[in-house]
Amino acid sequence: MALIVQKFGGSSVANAERVFRVANRIKSYYEKGNSVVVVVSAQGDTTDDLLEKAAEINNAPSKREMDVLLSSGEQISMALLAMALEKLGCPVISLTGWQAGMQTDSKHSAARIGSIKTERIQRELDLKKIVIVAGFQGIDRYEDITTLGRGGSDTSAVALAAALHADLCQIYTDVKGVYTADPRIVPDAAQLEDISYDEMLELASLGANVLHNRSVEVAKKYNVNMEVLSSFEEAPGTVVKEVNKVEKMIIRGVARDNDVARISLTDIGDEPGKAFTLFSILAKKNINVDIILQSIGRDNKKDISFTVPESSLETALETLKENMGLIGAKEILHDADVSKVSIVGAGMVSNPGVAAKMFEALYNANINIKMISTSEIKVSVLVARKEGEAAVRAIHDKFNLSNI
Amino acid sequence: MALIVQKFGGSSVANAERVFRVANRIKSYYEKGNSVVVVVSAQGDTTDDLLEKAAEINNAPSKREMDVLLSSGEQISMALLAMALEKLGCPVISLTGWQAGMQTDSKHSAARIGSIKTERIQRELDLKKIVIVAGFQGIDRYEDITTLGRGGSDTSAVALAAALHADLCQIYTDVKGVYTADPRIVPDAAQLEDISYDEMLELASLGANVLHNRSVEVAKKYNVNMEVLSSFEEAPGTVVKEVNKVEKMIIRGVARDNDVARISLTDIGDEPGKAFTLFSILAKKNINVDIILQSIGRDNKKDISFTVPESSLETALETLKENMGLIGAKEILHDADVSKVSIVGAGMVSNPGVAAKMFEALYNANINIKMISTSEIKVSVLVARKEGEAAVRAIHDKFNLSNI
Repeated sequence: MALIVQKFGGSSVANAERVFRVANRIKSYYEKGNSVVVVVSAQGDTTDDLLEKAAEINNAPSKREMDVLLSSGEQISMALLAMALEKLGCPVISLTGWQAGMQTDSKHSAARIGSIKTERIQRELDLKKIVIVAGFQGIDRYEDITTLGRGGSDTSAVALAAALHADLCQIYTDVKGVYTADPRIVPDAAQLEDISYDEMLELASLGANVLHNRSVEVAKKYNVNMEVLSSFEEAPGTVVKEVNKVEKMIIRGVARDNDVARISLTDIGDEPGKAFTLFSILAKKNINVDIILQSIGRDNKKDISFTVPESSLETALETLKENMGLIGAKEILHDADVSKVSIVGAGMVSNPGVAAKMFEALYNANINIKMISTSEIKVSVLVARKEGEAAVRAIHDKFNLSNI
Repeated sequence: MALIVQKFGGSSVANAERVFRVANRIKSYYEKGNSVVVVVSAQGDTTDDLLEKAAEINNAPSKREMDVLLSSGEQISMALLAMALEKLGCPVISLTGWQAGMQTDSKHSAARIGSIKTERIQRELDLKKIVIVAGFQGIDRYEDITTLGRGGSDTSAVALAAALHADLCQIYTDVKGVYTADPRIVPDAAQLEDISYDEMLELASLGANVLHNRSVEVAKKYNVNMEVLSSFEEAPGTVVKEVNKVEKMIIRGVARDNDVARISLTDIGDEPGKAFTLFSILAKKNINVDIILQSIGRDNKKDISFTVPESSLETALETLKENMGLIGAKEILHDADVSKVSIVGAGMVSNPGVAAKMFEALYNANINIKMISTSEIKVSVLVARKEGEAAVRAIHDKFNLSNI
């Protein structure tokens, strides 16, 4: 008799057959006496089709109208899923973002959920209905439709679970759970039974592509138990929660991220305020800077290297060139042919030698390290992109992650 | 400096090119200093595509969920039209039914507009924006999405024009206006400059297919000036309003309706309550009965003939057979191979001989009349379906309607 929030992504409801598979899954939980709230994304290609329609008309439409357009996608999928559950004889009701009380700020296309007015959902749950809520969308204080941006449906689900004090938030996806590495790169990667919020956050931002970062942040903040599991197979997934066995489990996984590029500025004057100037210029262009390394100053000159998403590289270089006067570097170098490979584990901080072991693995595999960055629960290195997969395998092997 | 409501149907916004044609039309009115509110239907095939998706999943879904599904269609088209106007440099905002305050009753799939809370629209107009409103849809008092049923966007437009006290409500369609007859049947049919609400109502219900009946009823009730005009050509349309020149214009048009079938019950007992019994049985099944004729009783027996939409014939016959005991007729006869041909004109009531002239036209064309019905502003006859078009032509010619 638990309250469960279940989130199904676009590929899980891509066609009528899959919609019924999802409906049957929901039904089985409902029939066990659980209260079930379902968050659903737009069907498979719907969003792309809508984007294409928009592009034919205006290549720079307002974000407000784009949100109006895109939010129709979940409205379609939620109605179809409701119809499937009706067909299976289940009492059900679908609710759009605004009907479900998903209040957000007004940042169209990248809105944040402020609060959820759960009265309507609660009323429908009290009537023993399965409640389907459109993911990814909300309403701002002007009664305008907003969307949460990429991966937003995960966040919708976790925020709903928090607001409803749900016992569990299940994120159904096309993988069986969280692995020690991408199984396409490391065939014997092991599925994790559980993982902590912080570890999951590092893995998500490091390119593990299982959960959207923002959803894990919300889950951590409100202590929501998440489970990542397959919508195609009936098998236990990976639970994301506060885990307290750091002494045993040192490394939880190896991640690779190809959406990364390195920029280096050489011979910058070694005086206060240079780093501030540089990174505030990039921040104004909404460019996310990840790893930052600054060389030790020599002859009143220093080098600054940093990574940005490869998709932001061009904008970053243009911006830097425009501002060369302010920054005062000799040269701007860049390298887009890199991968970031990282190990993540909350136990790392209390286990010295983890980084060294990782570097040893890379040395044994004859892989050169271009950049290093460490935090309390991760170590990241930059390597040549063509060596990225080999690096993941070497590290995974070195830490014996197949036998966790 | 007028306030104009413009309604564009699904074929007018079927693709990007047409969306721009519509956007340019809107822009030209806006740039003349008018306040413009646009009501838009779902794009061309969208509704059919959505119905197909639903049918794959559930052939009898709840009407509530069907409304959720179908209302996404206008949400898509209104966003695309807004993007086109943005591209043309016009300030614009799109509003769904609920954002525009279209309050309806809770009859899903056939809801009626109760009131319109125009504050939001008014606010956007005050900001000099073009306001695009999703047609066909509204919201009930439970905050559930409703749709108005077939032709609902016309009604949305007229109701909005009434609530906003608009100077004009333009209904853009794929014909240039209202004609004295269907130009596909009578090539030299003339376009009417104006027509009264009552005449338009008779023409609409008689199968002229230009405007939806309900929209004309609302226009009449609130005295909204409507104009029917082409979305493809720039030309004056037909204005629907209170017209006061009945002495001059006798006949406004000839209409044909093929969605009609005749049912006759023979030898019913000639006693009170028989007609009541019969038609209340049909009303319970939501069958619209149109023309009703009752023979003069002989030998305590009478015959009752009436017409129903051909699409309701099967249900009507089944219902009558089940209730033969109550009705007590000898036989149920039916004839679906008929057309209803009608002349409409507010001047008819003060011009004797109009009906006779119509019958003369049919006699000269050797067309047999199966049934006759008259009202103050129309005369309808039932003829064999294969003679329907010839009947329209003969009557149109007799009244010299090409030269109005």
